[in-house]
Amino acid sequence: MDYVTVRYTSKKPKLKNPILIEGLPGIGNVGKLAVEHLIDSVNATKFAELHSKDFPPQVFINTDGTIELVNNEFYYWKAKKRGQKDLILLTGDYQGLSSQGQYELVEKILEIAKEFGVQEIFTLGGYGLGHEIRDPKVLCATTDKHLVKTMKKYGAVFKKNEPGGGIVGASGLLLGLGKQQGFQGACFMGETPGYLVDPKSAKAVLKILMKITNVDLNLQALEKKAKEIEHIAHQLKEMESISKEKSEELKYIG
Amino acid sequence: MDYVTVRYTSKKPKLKNPILIEGLPGIGNVGKLAVEHLIDSVNATKFAELHSKDFPPQVFINTDGTIELVNNEFYYWKAKKRGQKDLILLTGDYQGLSSQGQYELVEKILEIAKEFGVQEIFTLGGYGLGHEIRDPKVLCATTDKHLVKTMKKYGAVFKKNEPGGGIVGASGLLLGLGKQQGFQGACFMGETPGYLVDPKSAKAVLKILMKITNVDLNLQALEKKAKEIEHIAHQLKEMESISKEKSEELKYIG
Amino acid sequence: MDYVTVRYTSKKPKLKNPILIEGLPGIGNVGKLAVEHLIDSVNATKFAELHSKDFPPQVFINTDGTIELVNNEFYYWKAKKRGQKDLILLTGDYQGLSSQGQYELVEKILEIAKEFGVQEIFTLGGYGLGHEIRDPKVLCATTDKHLVKTMKKYGAVFKKNEPGGGIVGASGLLLGLGKQQGFQGACFMGETPGYLVDPKSAKAVLKILMKITNVDLNLQALEKKAKEIEHIAHQLKEMESISKEKSEELKYIG
Amino acid sequence: MDYVTVRYTSKKPKLKNPILIEGLPGIGNVGKLAVEHLIDSVNATKFAELHSKDFPPQVFINTDGTIELVNNEFYYWKAKKRGQKDLILLTGDYQGLSSQGQYELVEKILEIAKEFGVQEIFTLGGYGLGHEIRDPKVLCATTDKHLVKTMKKYGAVFKKNEPGGGIVGASGLLLGLGKQQGFQGACFMGETPGYLVDPKSAKAVLKILMKITNVDLNLQALEKKAKEIEHIAHQLKEMESISKEKSEELKYIG
Repeated sequence: MDYVTVRYTSKKPKLKNPILIEGLPGIGNVGKLAVEHLIDSVNATKFAELHSKDFPPQVFINTDGTIELVNNEFYYWKAKKRGQKDLILLTGDYQGLSSQGQYELVEKILEIAKEFGVQEIFTLGGYGLGHEIRDPKVLCATTDKHLVKTMKKYGAVFKKNEPGGGIVGASGLLLGLGKQQGFQGACFMGETPGYLVDPKSAKAVLKILMKITNVDLNLQALEKKAKEIEHIAHQLKEMESISKEKSEELKYIG
Repeated sequence: MDYVTVRYTSKKPKLKNPILIEGLPGIGNVGKLAVEHLIDSVNATKFAELHSKDFPPQVFINTDGTIELVNNEFYYWKAKKRGQKDLILLTGDYQGLSSQGQYELVEKILEIAKEFGVQEIFTLGGYGLGHEIRDPKVLCATTDKHLVKTMKKYGAVFKKNEPGGGIVGASGLLLGLGKQQGFQGACFMGETPGYLVDPKSAKAVLKILMKITNVDLNLQALEKKAKEIEHIAHQLKEMESISKEKSEELKYIG
Repeated sequence: MDYVTVRYTSKKPKLKNPILIEGLPGIGNVGKLAVEHLIDSVNATKFAELHSKDFPPQVFINTDGTIELVNNEFYYWKAKKRGQKDLILLTGDYQGLSSQGQYELVEKILEIAKEFGVQEIFTLGGYGLGHEIRDPKVLCATTDKHLVKTMKKYGAVFKKNEPGGGIVGASGLLLGLGKQQGFQGACFMGETPGYLVDPKSAKAVLKILMKITNVDLNLQALEKKAKEIEHIAHQLKEMESISKEKSEELKYIG
Repeated sequence: MDYVTVRYTSKKPKLKNPILIEGLPGIGNVGKLAVEHLIDSVNATKFAELHSKDFPPQVFINTDGTIELVNNEFYYWKAKKRGQKDLILLTGDYQGLSSQGQYELVEKILEIAKEFGVQEIFTLGGYGLGHEIRDPKVLCATTDKHLVKTMKKYGAVFKKNEPGGGIVGASGLLLGLGKQQGFQGACFMGETPGYLVDPKSAKAVLKILMKITNVDLNLQALEKKAKEIEHIAHQLKEMESISKEKSEELKYIG
């Protein structure tokens, strides 16, 4: 097995200039949540797996008791009507652990993208604010200047010097290395506190993606998850304030 | 020397569809203890060593004053009666230190397994509970769905979502990569507190393995070790509670 | 893409025995500041980019909303009058993260230097003192004994056993590996507290470089930056002393 | 440059079955001190340098202001009388930083050893006790059983289960990998507190080496250094006990 290997799990699909959409684990798991929801909503078909020697040496256990090597997975979906394009959807368990591993992984993804005729890449992720936020905006950065206007039209936000640290990981690298190879695209970063997985932020990202892809998605499942997470966040806060009170009482006594 | 190298220390044995059983260091050293006991009990013969540039740069010192490069070791045992199969037993000083090292090591092990006609792989390890346990169960995960039933019959336990983090290390990877190459098998994880080496858990794992392999093992040595470890654990606890008392006395005085 | 790759962003310039001057990020960012100022002052032309799999997997976002893969950049400048030499200027976002990454990066830089006929290399950096300094001296080390005298003439300082730890990173390695390949050169290390970016130290380094290269530079922009940084340093100190006072008050009360 | 490269700095010497003696940095720098003293005493001649991409990316600065890439160095010495053998002496600035780097380095050393007809290897190091010691013993481990007796005769000590962790680093690996390639040899580990460089322990190691090699060494320089270090150790202790007293006074006052 090479450092990164691709394994086709079904016949290679025939796709027409598909758009690649990536959502791997990251801050608030925004990108992964968004792409997983997209896969479920459009009922996309899995066709390939990526394995890397830079992923942890780990298997997960399915509910039926069988094991599954950690991986990244490719799905495809064929356009149903005019104004839509075929999609390749990428999600997975991990990003590469090391710098080199990240570069190798992204190079392999771009190789596959090229093979299927991809010209446009959209990468999804979160932008950690470190504080709560009511209506998460979606920050954006693009490979090409002319795309900035387009993405603004779709509701994406461009802020000077944000994110200040740029984009780290596969979402950034796919555009950075991709640009050198002639791909065009954009990264959408949903604002998120970054403490917990954030379906609300994933929803904000998908709303923009719906406009770009012309694909209608039912976002109710994400909204439900978002409420559950808000509930958990609320409980965590209460527990924290109780334990704070208690420790203050203790100080008072002691 | 390649990244991982195999060195035959005796003539290559001729084996008939042997079963590969792996037990490398890990939580509670359950897998290593089990395979070492198995090797001693059946008086298996060492035939090869694995060295990896991802093992620590280290030699151990034998009781006779000579040194030994850290390694993994292969043993074989030939079936003595009907219903038994030839065995290849794998144990060693270390697993790979890095992700890549683990993948390379396991690929080499599978290469050797294939060379000897192995079709089934059983990997042994511990499942750390973080608390003490009277009767350790043996959790299981398999490469194939049809094996789940079989393993249940032998007394292995399947719990939904356990281990939640999947299986990390050679025990998981041998099945994960092996499955892709057509091997079948299962991982047995003996429940263990995980604080100390755990011969009791190793015994639980071997009891199931005895049924699968149809090989009778005398488990007394493990039981004796288990009692010694229980004694040590008991002493450690007492020391802890004494030092706790003392520190409370000190607080009282101070 | 190889571990380190060079990408020409314009036609390869024709240069006559150019001098290579390197200033990558490091202590006080002295080297990077100096080379960036040099590039701006002489209006040098970018002609190539280096990418390495040992750089972080990261893109930065330009002010126009487009992304840029982290890199090292080569600029050239052609001599305008007698007594000057053509220059190749190297700066960038990062040095290699790992030892191996640093060696690979520097080997690639030397390969390019050789291709353009470079014979002399000057590397710029900071020498962290850990305390403030009014007039930063510029320490020096050279590839060849006969250069020591020359560099002293230009105002560089040689102190026995300083820097005690030698020179770590690209500035050292370019000379160390370069010397083996027949390059000559020197490293200039501007003294710096090392807490903040240090334009004052960069100015000191450039003053010496101006004499060596016979290139006149307007250093006002650096002086302005130096004043800004001094202002910030002053503010930080005040904040510190206030918070110190406060914590002492608190101690007094508590 | 390969991962590890050898560079001959003089004509390859013609040696007759030389003994390789290694002393690289380690606990108490015992091995390095010993080999450096040996090189000085017999006035050995440097003939080659090793560079590795796993060494830190660093140059040291010579007293004349020139730089020197960090390396390992080979010296040779030709036997002067009957009963002596030619020597190859290896010391240097660093060992490899990573596991793989250590393996690669040692393989290269063995390759060179083989080229010069080396059959015996002696590796020198320290055995850290964590407490002071008046008369450091020299622990030993060998590649072959028959050497244990010989080494005992020379005054080396074999203790069961010591060092419990085996031998980590080049000293262990040279014997471990060397044994597989047919080299014979021993590792001598001078007992040392391990806090400071330890010339006393280096002296103990050299005393044994003198008997093995039949080479007379003047150990006065080491004895002088040992006294200096003892003086420093004494001063450090005093400073410690003073600061301890002071902190107790403070407690008393506060």
